[in-house]
Amino acid sequence: MRRWAAYRGEPLYLEELVSSPAHSLIEQSHCATRAKTATNGDGFGIAWYGDRPEPGRYRDILPAWSDCNLRSLARQIRSPLFLAHVRAATTGATRRDNCHPFVHGRWSFMHNGQISGFEQIRRSMESLLCDELFNARTGTTDSELLFLLALRFGLDADPLGAVEKAIATVEKLSYEKSGEALVRFTAAFSNGRELYAVRYATDHRPPTLYAAPMGETAGGKQGYCLVSEPLNDEADTWVEIPDGSAVRVNDEGMQALLFQPQSLSKAA
Amino acid sequence: MRRWAAYRGEPLYLEELVSSPAHSLIEQSHCATRAKTATNGDGFGIAWYGDRPEPGRYRDILPAWSDCNLRSLARQIRSPLFLAHVRAATTGATRRDNCHPFVHGRWSFMHNGQISGFEQIRRSMESLLCDELFNARTGTTDSELLFLLALRFGLDADPLGAVEKAIATVEKLSYEKSGEALVRFTAAFSNGRELYAVRYATDHRPPTLYAAPMGETAGGKQGYCLVSEPLNDEADTWVEIPDGSAVRVNDEGMQALLFQPQSLSKAA
Amino acid sequence: MRRWAAYRGEPLYLEELVSSPAHSLIEQSHCATRAKTATNGDGFGIAWYGDRPEPGRYRDILPAWSDCNLRSLARQIRSPLFLAHVRAATTGATRRDNCHPFVHGRWSFMHNGQISGFEQIRRSMESLLCDELFNARTGTTDSELLFLLALRFGLDADPLGAVEKAIATVEKLSYEKSGEALVRFTAAFSNGRELYAVRYATDHRPPTLYAAPMGETAGGKQGYCLVSEPLNDEADTWVEIPDGSAVRVNDEGMQALLFQPQSLSKAA
Amino acid sequence: MRRWAAYRGEPLYLEELVSSPAHSLIEQSHCATRAKTATNGDGFGIAWYGDRPEPGRYRDILPAWSDCNLRSLARQIRSPLFLAHVRAATTGATRRDNCHPFVHGRWSFMHNGQISGFEQIRRSMESLLCDELFNARTGTTDSELLFLLALRFGLDADPLGAVEKAIATVEKLSYEKSGEALVRFTAAFSNGRELYAVRYATDHRPPTLYAAPMGETAGGKQGYCLVSEPLNDEADTWVEIPDGSAVRVNDEGMQALLFQPQSLSKAA
Repeated sequence: MRRWAAYRGEPLYLEELVSSPAHSLIEQSHCATRAKTATNGDGFGIAWYGDRPEPGRYRDILPAWSDCNLRSLARQIRSPLFLAHVRAATTGATRRDNCHPFVHGRWSFMHNGQISGFEQIRRSMESLLCDELFNARTGTTDSELLFLLALRFGLDADPLGAVEKAIATVEKLSYEKSGEALVRFTAAFSNGRELYAVRYATDHRPPTLYAAPMGETAGGKQGYCLVSEPLNDEADTWVEIPDGSAVRVNDEGMQALLFQPQSLSKAA
Repeated sequence: MRRWAAYRGEPLYLEELVSSPAHSLIEQSHCATRAKTATNGDGFGIAWYGDRPEPGRYRDILPAWSDCNLRSLARQIRSPLFLAHVRAATTGATRRDNCHPFVHGRWSFMHNGQISGFEQIRRSMESLLCDELFNARTGTTDSELLFLLALRFGLDADPLGAVEKAIATVEKLSYEKSGEALVRFTAAFSNGRELYAVRYATDHRPPTLYAAPMGETAGGKQGYCLVSEPLNDEADTWVEIPDGSAVRVNDEGMQALLFQPQSLSKAA
Repeated sequence: MRRWAAYRGEPLYLEELVSSPAHSLIEQSHCATRAKTATNGDGFGIAWYGDRPEPGRYRDILPAWSDCNLRSLARQIRSPLFLAHVRAATTGATRRDNCHPFVHGRWSFMHNGQISGFEQIRRSMESLLCDELFNARTGTTDSELLFLLALRFGLDADPLGAVEKAIATVEKLSYEKSGEALVRFTAAFSNGRELYAVRYATDHRPPTLYAAPMGETAGGKQGYCLVSEPLNDEADTWVEIPDGSAVRVNDEGMQALLFQPQSLSKAA
Repeated sequence: MRRWAAYRGEPLYLEELVSSPAHSLIEQSHCATRAKTATNGDGFGIAWYGDRPEPGRYRDILPAWSDCNLRSLARQIRSPLFLAHVRAATTGATRRDNCHPFVHGRWSFMHNGQISGFEQIRRSMESLLCDELFNARTGTTDSELLFLLALRFGLDADPLGAVEKAIATVEKLSYEKSGEALVRFTAAFSNGRELYAVRYATDHRPPTLYAAPMGETAGGKQGYCLVSEPLNDEADTWVEIPDGSAVRVNDEGMQALLFQPQSLSKAA
């Protein structure tokens, strides 16, 4: 189980999601109130968009709560679009290369969930990558591989469609290998312009996903925050995104969309 | 809150306390069942006695559960006397110099507990050290400073008396500074021959301390294990050491003793 | 021996000093061309001023050349005033708390040089600190202690005078302890408005210090760079700052000043 | 360029190779006297055989010279057969999974050298692994992949033949990909009984390899040390192992053998 938060809107200091709120990511990582695993002490990462098209990234394997670099960076860096993640390892050893978010070119990606039997299909998944993406793999997690598969399937041209194809492919490979497929998947990703999040599970029990407006509201301008767990106890503020859905945040605000890898999977 | 285990007896692989039992230290650090703080993800350390008079030591700031070096060392190293500790920071930043056990010459020391208002009396405590011990301080924890104070007060000549004096001094300084003194203290320490543990609190609510026989029993030879929390659910095996007590393990077995810093404190 | 670079002027990406130039800090850390010690593989740090009065800071104990976080941050962060440092340990163990720059409130500080016999006078130096500054000490280096002493002697009111007093005090303590005093000292420090650097040695052999104009020049606006070693081979660009001197960079440009702790030391 | 040392013989404290001699590995890593790259500040590792058939291992990404854990372990652990390595990264990011020695079952392996154009043939090399060995890959280095290929080709049954086949395969893949093959290869490996080292390069310019008797000599018993660079200046002691050779150390002493991947390569 991991925790994450993503934001798009008027520039915000990262600390407003990472370390300040009642249930900030750092607080969540230390004392998980509703988590199934006891703690998220296996590293963290942030990716943010600034003046350049590619995001900046900082990640480390220390527990988020003891990293003074993270606190200082989150206090200094202000960004209109960023992703932040704390990790409790499910697959992949604890090392920087396995910490979310993953970055490739302009894209950033982070993930929460599981692929049952990943070790059995990892090699088949890797074989679908072109050489350039294969060589871009630096870690061993299922999450990074899903991201690279989505890039392979056209993340630039059709972001949600490409992620649907990646998930459908995983389901198909799992089914071929073991006669069943269990994928639980909640993810956020961005190209520096739009911010996306999706929620989906083959057994209809995906990790949670919430959205809320956030940031400057005086001048009518504001932003949206997408999170794995609410950042405060104001239950009214947070909308739970249902299973089989995606959200997209861009200049026009936040739109809800369908996310249905299973239709591809059945078609295939 | 921290968890620790110490052993003296027939040589034992460290993994038999650190990673193997149902409630091994690594397991405890990941999913604390009775702990007051949520996790122990802030580093760990081991000190063991082998062929040399000084102990070896390995410590790191990663969560114990994700450190493959620790697993490999615990599987290879066999010792008749060792201390192992996992840490959730209370005072002192997360860095190796602040990880238990602390080592000085032949002595090793680890601690669980708290000194209320430590920051107010830290400087006064340090001023009691001789230059050699002052210069030996490498971290910023209350635990290391208690250990150095005990060395100052004659740990070699009278181990339990020196620790009593160190605690009594802390109580006195706290009282002078703030009109009250709260010290909760459970510790284990060794000179490579005897293994000691003490349990004491000014408010009679010290962290827990348990003892159990362990290791080879066939030939009549065996050892003793001292722990902050039982390592398995066999409640009959574990004896709770009461507040105001010490235990000493040597070639004659395990002896229970009084530990009463407050008598010194009142006398002073 | 350490290497450092500092900049004040039009906002510049940190990478323009840290990773881009021919003799960038990262390159210098890996393959020191004129260094006396073989390498600078013991950590690094950056401090930069942005929207807030206090600087941001990032530091780690890895060799600078292998830290992908540093490269990403240096590529994203643009600042009008920043300090960057790579370290080969002379005193103090390798850990984050001992990595430059040091930060206290609005001040940042980094240092290159040595205090002969530091271990003998460390305790006397610490005893001169008020409790607040004593408690602010988190590492064990001579550099951090010099910085805290300068704060104690009024860094806010008279920056260069306070550093002169700190150095003079060290000389006096050394002389009292051992009958001689050897201090070699090159440092840069800032309060977020002015950037200062000083060069001084009791034996007139201080570490090197160079200055050069840098950055946007089209509109007449530009900045100044202060470094321990030139960042490229354009020898004409770099002015060597002489022993016993200081430089101050502010909105009016760069001014050269005297820096003479010895006059204080002799007076005392 | 990396530095390494291996030993087989009467049990020896690791520090006798790692930290004690004039040109110990730690000293070599800090101030390389004949190295082509300036420093070896990118991590280190040790693997040693004790009571169990599988070796213990400790590795970390810090510079070897600043790791107090390494010094303590090298001082405590005594072993009849061990490998020690310091690394300056050529391929693969700095992280523990990329630090030598690599371990699989009873085998340990460390390597010094280069495969020109490794990135172009990495995927083809990986495709030759069976699923079990493919899944055992945790890092991204050419060295780990060579080791896994050698296991694939029968390291247990014919240690030197399997390594010859691995090298020959690399040459063949390189030649197919680019019309040329440049492999420079010096390695040491062990199954816990015999210790092997090989030296070979397609252009006859392999990294250096030396052997010397070492350890207890009084009772006639002794051991042999195999190193990338001599550990002291006694030139008479060290025998340079020529290009195209292997050495094997077992209970009968040290034997020199041919090592000729190119004959396989041409035959193929």
